[in-house]
Amino acid sequence: MSDYNQDALAVAQLEMQGNLRRPFDPTSHDLEPTFRLTRFADLKGRGCKVPQEVLGKLVSSLQQDYTTQDEHSQFMQMAVPRIGIGLDCSVTPLRHGGLCLVQTTDFFYPIVDDPYMMGKIACANVLSDLYAMGVMDCDNMLMLLAISTKMTEKERDVVVPLIMRGFKDSALEAGTSVTGGQSVVNPWCTIGGVASTICQPNEYIVPDNAVVGDVLVLTKPLGTQVAVNAHQWLDQPERWNRIKLVVSEEDVRKAYHRAMDSMARLNRTAARLMHKYNAHGSTDVTGFGLLGHAQTLASHQKNEVSFVIHNLPVIAKMAAVAKACGNMFQLLQGHSAETSGGLLICLPREQAAAYCKDIEKQEGYQAWIIGIVEKGNRTARIIDKPRVIEVPAKE
Amino acid sequence: MSDYNQDALAVAQLEMQGNLRRPFDPTSHDLEPTFRLTRFADLKGRGCKVPQEVLGKLVSSLQQDYTTQDEHSQFMQMAVPRIGIGLDCSVTPLRHGGLCLVQTTDFFYPIVDDPYMMGKIACANVLSDLYAMGVMDCDNMLMLLAISTKMTEKERDVVVPLIMRGFKDSALEAGTSVTGGQSVVNPWCTIGGVASTICQPNEYIVPDNAVVGDVLVLTKPLGTQVAVNAHQWLDQPERWNRIKLVVSEEDVRKAYHRAMDSMARLNRTAARLMHKYNAHGSTDVTGFGLLGHAQTLASHQKNEVSFVIHNLPVIAKMAAVAKACGNMFQLLQGHSAETSGGLLICLPREQAAAYCKDIEKQEGYQAWIIGIVEKGNRTARIIDKPRVIEVPAKE
Repeated sequence: MSDYNQDALAVAQLEMQGNLRRPFDPTSHDLEPTFRLTRFADLKGRGCKVPQEVLGKLVSSLQQDYTTQDEHSQFMQMAVPRIGIGLDCSVTPLRHGGLCLVQTTDFFYPIVDDPYMMGKIACANVLSDLYAMGVMDCDNMLMLLAISTKMTEKERDVVVPLIMRGFKDSALEAGTSVTGGQSVVNPWCTIGGVASTICQPNEYIVPDNAVVGDVLVLTKPLGTQVAVNAHQWLDQPERWNRIKLVVSEEDVRKAYHRAMDSMARLNRTAARLMHKYNAHGSTDVTGFGLLGHAQTLASHQKNEVSFVIHNLPVIAKMAAVAKACGNMFQLLQGHSAETSGGLLICLPREQAAAYCKDIEKQEGYQAWIIGIVEKGNRTARIIDKPRVIEVPAKE
Repeated sequence: MSDYNQDALAVAQLEMQGNLRRPFDPTSHDLEPTFRLTRFADLKGRGCKVPQEVLGKLVSSLQQDYTTQDEHSQFMQMAVPRIGIGLDCSVTPLRHGGLCLVQTTDFFYPIVDDPYMMGKIACANVLSDLYAMGVMDCDNMLMLLAISTKMTEKERDVVVPLIMRGFKDSALEAGTSVTGGQSVVNPWCTIGGVASTICQPNEYIVPDNAVVGDVLVLTKPLGTQVAVNAHQWLDQPERWNRIKLVVSEEDVRKAYHRAMDSMARLNRTAARLMHKYNAHGSTDVTGFGLLGHAQTLASHQKNEVSFVIHNLPVIAKMAAVAKACGNMFQLLQGHSAETSGGLLICLPREQAAAYCKDIEKQEGYQAWIIGIVEKGNRTARIIDKPRVIEVPAKE
């Protein structure tokens, strides 16, 4: 290890002492005070995903083939997910006695400026797809990393080990480890991974069992994209002027830290409790927003049901910020991208409150009943004037 | 499926009729005649990999941890590979009776202008890491795709389905299927995947058994990076002028097609024959060049051996092109990046010729004995004046 990296890690260790981790300070790593990890990608407030309808068109040519050619395309009455679309994980039956490979991949661009937290978030985000299937244990992770061509050597030497360490620490927290990966150079910094588990069919929950009368539970608040963008605007007066009437700098900083905390949190307990409370299916809320993922989940149901969402738990003040930005985020319409969002779970009505109480007891974080399952044609919608639940930052 | 995509695929079908697949013609897809897939990344003749020594520095901080913390870090006397460095696959022991998860990931940028071939090459390149471990069957693949932010909608709608189809066709050829993935937007077009297999320990070959007296076999010619760059220079007079004294346009086109053909070819037969002829270990030659990968393989050996390379089989004329470019590619020094290159295999001396004969009989492609295993300190080198073997394009 070079001396320089020793120093960088020593600083990182310091920042992490106790539970009160200090925020990333570029100058304490000998970087310019204006260094911002989020500047190594230029998404301009968009999510990084290819829009759902475009993706649908692009992969439609392949799906046709699978129906006729792929012997694995139906498995336990479950359509095996298609390229980049559909369910959260791919499930592949194996040659070995009844086992399945459950696997997922995800990668995206820096959305927070703290490299260590960015690594944690990227890892939690990949694992979340497994958790959405009720899988509690991940056997193995790979890390995918692109280092920006625009980073100086010094920036790279500070940032990359911190991202890797964050990713790895999150994997350890999840009881798994990172055993490989790929690193390339790219204009935009990119972080992601692959999570795989081999399990018996009873270890995962096929997310197609919603019945009329179920309720929908969400395990993390919405608004991460709004919070990380608002935080970037603190440096951009022309942007800041658009929202400063509805929000203070302090509010934005709190929301940003709440968002980071939320994105770095694993959905593992949420997955474990799905088994205890007999969940009928779940998905995790990420790039296509609450409604996008709710619609995909609804479309996979065996029964003729539809999802109706009444409540939107949103990180405090972020609903107001979203409104002040016009239609940019589409937060209250359910289209704002989330990163490492909560699980959206269909639970029997009589179990949902106990589920929420249990997760709060175990983790200290709230979950919310946000909607109901009705008879319908496998679609999802948000009611006209949904109730916004303001979720305060912890002090 | 949109009508437009129907048309694009009809054209693709036409292009693929029989074994004589016609080269990709942008105008037959209603794209500008100057459309070049390779322009959606700007590597300027570099490989896309982070240089080996930089990567080593960046991940060194993590490796230290693994030694003390990771209970799986030693398995069957084999160091489990580290992040982005070391062996070709990660091998993870599973909770289920004696099984292992063997897994790899790789992604990179367009290096050829034919989107369908690009998809095939990307898939063959990912699978190659499994084949290098002697694994013959892949259980599952995921596809990783970034669509360039600079592509027009029309370009995207032509190119992406063709890439996906090429990737999928290659997976089918390998007896596996693509069951998921991730798609994002990015300045540079990016293509890659994840290959996973669950197997018994006797189904893979731990690549650490080379003994003094073994010989080194290579199953594909070198020079793919030189060939794809020379082909791009046909459009760039100032570049072309540097090499036109040593090579004709026709030579470059032949070399380019030979390179595409070689990169799209699976190393599956090469892997199967490793078992038949008792290979002592193998790696696949990719981004770090022949010598880079030979050195990594040498460093993992149990015995005190070193590898000495005498012969360099190179796609016809590409050695001359590389020389005319000065030190740009470092082809004859063993550092020129390859994509989806051959397997470099340690074989018992008395079996190597039979191995080469068998692979040629089964596939119609030559393999070469390129070096020997001597007593040494686990390093690899190329002799001072290696013999260059010109590998002609098939007519």
